[in-house]
Amino acid sequence: MYQNTDVPLVGSYHLTVDPFDVDFSGRLTIGQLGNHLLNAAGFHANERGFGISRLNEDDNTWVLSRVAIEFTELPREYQHFTVETWVEAVMRMFTCRNFCIKDQMGNPIGYARTIWAMINRQSRKPVDLTTIDDGRLAEWVVPDRECPIAPPSKIKVSVSEPADTVRVKYSDIDINGHMNSCRYIEHILDLFSLRFYREHRIKRFEIAYMAECLHGDFLHLYKEETSPGTYEIEIRKDGTNEIACRSLVEVQSL
Amino acid sequence: MYQNTDVPLVGSYHLTVDPFDVDFSGRLTIGQLGNHLLNAAGFHANERGFGISRLNEDDNTWVLSRVAIEFTELPREYQHFTVETWVEAVMRMFTCRNFCIKDQMGNPIGYARTIWAMINRQSRKPVDLTTIDDGRLAEWVVPDRECPIAPPSKIKVSVSEPADTVRVKYSDIDINGHMNSCRYIEHILDLFSLRFYREHRIKRFEIAYMAECLHGDFLHLYKEETSPGTYEIEIRKDGTNEIACRSLVEVQSL
Repeated sequence: MYQNTDVPLVGSYHLTVDPFDVDFSGRLTIGQLGNHLLNAAGFHANERGFGISRLNEDDNTWVLSRVAIEFTELPREYQHFTVETWVEAVMRMFTCRNFCIKDQMGNPIGYARTIWAMINRQSRKPVDLTTIDDGRLAEWVVPDRECPIAPPSKIKVSVSEPADTVRVKYSDIDINGHMNSCRYIEHILDLFSLRFYREHRIKRFEIAYMAECLHGDFLHLYKEETSPGTYEIEIRKDGTNEIACRSLVEVQSL
Repeated sequence: MYQNTDVPLVGSYHLTVDPFDVDFSGRLTIGQLGNHLLNAAGFHANERGFGISRLNEDDNTWVLSRVAIEFTELPREYQHFTVETWVEAVMRMFTCRNFCIKDQMGNPIGYARTIWAMINRQSRKPVDLTTIDDGRLAEWVVPDRECPIAPPSKIKVSVSEPADTVRVKYSDIDINGHMNSCRYIEHILDLFSLRFYREHRIKRFEIAYMAECLHGDFLHLYKEETSPGTYEIEIRKDGTNEIACRSLVEVQSL
């Protein structure tokens, strides 16, 4: 599985901010940053022999469970930036993958923590990560590299009136036939007005993916300011009331 | 203005399909293709001294008026492709910029025609393109390069019931404070179901931009099948009934 022993533990990917990936403020959107992090994770895993294409041979696949991102600033259009990613830990049911985002000078401007599970595509059941390929996934662990942000929080929303309702449409759907991971982020960030974004800066964003959303689903978005500057959000499916995801947005005033 | 005489008339840009830029079928979305075409146009103009950054010095800017795209297939995730672009003509009020999209073997898989105006950012009035920089924009014209697709059509929608209504949200807004050109495309393509896309292939897509949409605008989307396999779409703003854009989608059965 790990033929190339010259591959470093930490993957490093150099990117540029495309003009259509910025918001009204001219900075990279969190949704697009999410895309870049997931792409970096995909490249890192593929280059090290545990990416989707290798897993698919055994009918297994990675499932993203949680993301927490903090940043001091986001790069502007046409600016270069770097995404570094590494595996922090491998447990039976989950693996932790961390990220550092660096600006064009190489200074860290953000960090992310992600949690992934592996499932069998036929049974949809979890796969024990410590057993796959004779436990060699653990060889990629970098236990001592710092990721100075808190792990994902416990999110609990108790409001009963949705702040908005959206229908899952063609453009939301990815190659797996589910709503694209980053479209959840966009729908959540669309709960805040342009005026809110002019007056606040997001410093932390979290999302926990709980159920897949399909084309035609109606999604109710519940939003609650649980402490000053901290918003907790829950997306529930219409009809079944199944929780699709939970999210946390922490802002500071500008 | 045109310092570098070694710059070729036709610009050529090599791109890769990112995994989050594909739809359920695994192929590049038309919205993302639109982004890539507009980016290529921006690079081509900047490299030749008539891009946004140069124009902004005189407080002028480019405004995209119309787009027509035809393709036989779209590239799949991780595939490389090339966008070639050149100026076909410069008139007083408009300039025509064409595109050829080539697959990773260098074979043409699509073409696009776009029409642009230039306006002054203060007066919002059009600028005579034949007079700027002593008429030297015309030096970039490539009159003899073929672009074998029809020019943009006259679009007329006469249905009175909207097929859908959307509100312009934070994620729709670009750095200019207006709805992103490619979000119009997404909202239009979201008028068709996933089932429709499984049974049809889009072979031609057109859009004419008529008025800018702002955050909070409610947009009514009208759709009419004007001949078998040809859909004409109009987006009108709620309240004023102002036409924001018109579009045409031509499909063939799979």
